[in-house]
Amino acid sequence: MDTKGKVIKCKAAIAWEANKPLSIEEVEVAPPKAHEIRIQIIATALCHSDAHILHPKFVNAFFPVILGHEAAGIVESVGPGVTNFKPGDKVIPLYAPHCKKCKFCLSARTNFCAKLSPFKNPIVDQELMEDKTSRFTCKGKPVYHFMGTSTFTQYTVISETNLVKIDDDVNLEKVCLFGCAFSTGYGAVINTAKVTPGSTCAIFGLGGVGISVVVGCKLAGASRIIAIDINSEKFAKAKALGATDCLNPRDLQKPIQDVIIEMTNGGVDFSFDCAGGSEVMKAALDCTTVGWGSCTLIGVAIGDPGLTVDPLEILMGRTINGTIFGGWKGKDSIPKLIADYKNKKFNLDALVTHTLPFNKINEAFDLMYQGKSLRTVLTF
Amino acid sequence: MDTKGKVIKCKAAIAWEANKPLSIEEVEVAPPKAHEIRIQIIATALCHSDAHILHPKFVNAFFPVILGHEAAGIVESVGPGVTNFKPGDKVIPLYAPHCKKCKFCLSARTNFCAKLSPFKNPIVDQELMEDKTSRFTCKGKPVYHFMGTSTFTQYTVISETNLVKIDDDVNLEKVCLFGCAFSTGYGAVINTAKVTPGSTCAIFGLGGVGISVVVGCKLAGASRIIAIDINSEKFAKAKALGATDCLNPRDLQKPIQDVIIEMTNGGVDFSFDCAGGSEVMKAALDCTTVGWGSCTLIGVAIGDPGLTVDPLEILMGRTINGTIFGGWKGKDSIPKLIADYKNKKFNLDALVTHTLPFNKINEAFDLMYQGKSLRTVLTF
Repeated sequence: MDTKGKVIKCKAAIAWEANKPLSIEEVEVAPPKAHEIRIQIIATALCHSDAHILHPKFVNAFFPVILGHEAAGIVESVGPGVTNFKPGDKVIPLYAPHCKKCKFCLSARTNFCAKLSPFKNPIVDQELMEDKTSRFTCKGKPVYHFMGTSTFTQYTVISETNLVKIDDDVNLEKVCLFGCAFSTGYGAVINTAKVTPGSTCAIFGLGGVGISVVVGCKLAGASRIIAIDINSEKFAKAKALGATDCLNPRDLQKPIQDVIIEMTNGGVDFSFDCAGGSEVMKAALDCTTVGWGSCTLIGVAIGDPGLTVDPLEILMGRTINGTIFGGWKGKDSIPKLIADYKNKKFNLDALVTHTLPFNKINEAFDLMYQGKSLRTVLTF
Repeated sequence: MDTKGKVIKCKAAIAWEANKPLSIEEVEVAPPKAHEIRIQIIATALCHSDAHILHPKFVNAFFPVILGHEAAGIVESVGPGVTNFKPGDKVIPLYAPHCKKCKFCLSARTNFCAKLSPFKNPIVDQELMEDKTSRFTCKGKPVYHFMGTSTFTQYTVISETNLVKIDDDVNLEKVCLFGCAFSTGYGAVINTAKVTPGSTCAIFGLGGVGISVVVGCKLAGASRIIAIDINSEKFAKAKALGATDCLNPRDLQKPIQDVIIEMTNGGVDFSFDCAGGSEVMKAALDCTTVGWGSCTLIGVAIGDPGLTVDPLEILMGRTINGTIFGGWKGKDSIPKLIADYKNKKFNLDALVTHTLPFNKINEAFDLMYQGKSLRTVLTF
């Protein structure tokens, strides 16, 4: 049945309000307008950024909304003016847009794109298409998009600035993780911190992003990779993927930063906060060495007062840096990461701990909240 | 009269306690021990780091103490084992030591030296010589050293790791500013922030360090140099040395960061906090652009709660970095800076706004507190 140009009725998970489970509903997905692409989502994972929107302390969230930003799919139809995508193409949605025209996209120094607002939280940006309307309707009401992607649905509509074509011969149930977790963690190591061979690293928080940081540090040739989590069940996988030491702050008699400073005779060269929150950020900064310690922030906790920095820590030579989407310019980088994956440069598949049918999306959230999953991939 | 090996009695300014003027006293300066050099101070300037020790809210200060860390002098005698200095050499004391042997000195990534404690404030470190004794006595009491330099005295004793020989044909009343102010500000631009041609810069605080940052930004080819101070009397010199815009936050109707973001269509590429304090540090971070904004911390305010960082500001691509002594490895870099000065690469002399006899040191502090001087040079 040719669906091009027609409204598609399909299944989606709607977030009607904060602090409630998602609701599987029938939605109407309008055809793509100019420079938009409608895609069929084949596999979508989930991440704490989706959960943030549902957090009762999160302000500025829009409802109802279709969440989801880590997925892979197949082009169903393209809107006017789209020349780089055609029906049947395998694609990955990019929550970090890549217009290739703005001063940021034209600079090698950043993966930021001027399509994002410099003053908004990226997870409440791109809540509508560029013409300020939605392509989703449920029960007669318009439904907000999320991060320019909205992947918790069988079909979604995405701007051509937020989509990258990938090779046909890949398993979408695995490569969907390039949409966020793996790219974010691995890129933070390679592009943002620029971890050097023989260096020492500390990684706080061993979810999908943190484990991808471990993989990146190992590949970058770090000699010591200290993996930290308050859930010791995460340690087996961390060790299997490259961690040399695993620490649970709850098992220690003194602050985690003091333990790391002792273990490394002065502090690590690179630290990564993949958890978020004042206390973890501070530990991540404190545990770096004077002289050249680099602290990379990746995680964000909701309702948190932020990181308090004693300027002397910085004057002694430390740097605080950060990244969204691992610093990758999506359209250029994802195809290269896919090639590396096909060449077995890294073990992406190890991050997929669970696969569930899309209808069980609330179970997938529970697995994440309970720290039981690295990534749960949902299929339709 | 040969003073080698003998105690020298001379004039020094003693800080007996916090929050009191310095007292000109006769002190006894012991001969240098192994790997130490006794020097005659010819010119010394002063800086807020000296004043910090006297601040009633500063904790951990040692008294009595001879302050001072920005000076130039002539070697009087050398202790056993000293081979790189001889009597008559012109020298600049280095509060940032440079042992050339530790892992930090051997790395190109930092000017930190393991002679400094990674856990102490540098301005309360090196309060005694390496054998944990003092070379100063006043009224029968030992007097603490300060930052390994103690330059508010006619004669001082310095470790060979804290001294650099300079050319004979320079004016010590000017080049003493390489001991802190100029090197710190200029180096923050060149070594730490690495300002690029055509970039936009904002400098908060136009004292000796801030003005040196202006000079550095101009030399680095910045196209827009926004100089900020709450004392508009600083603006004439800032403009003469390269500032393109001068702003007084007290004259503005909205926060300084908002004004800078508007002026630069999104924020500057590089900002420098040469003042210190939560509010200024936050303005310096906020006024940088997303994507690649770099915020360099140089100033430290006493009794301040620190900089509160919203991790999202960092995730959007900003970096916080910092420096002591402008990132210069003193023994290698100061001779090169002196050569640049002799070749008129920059106008160091413009920073010396006042010259006073050493006895008037408390007047020099007043000029600094009142914001009337950039640098006052004291001569004996």
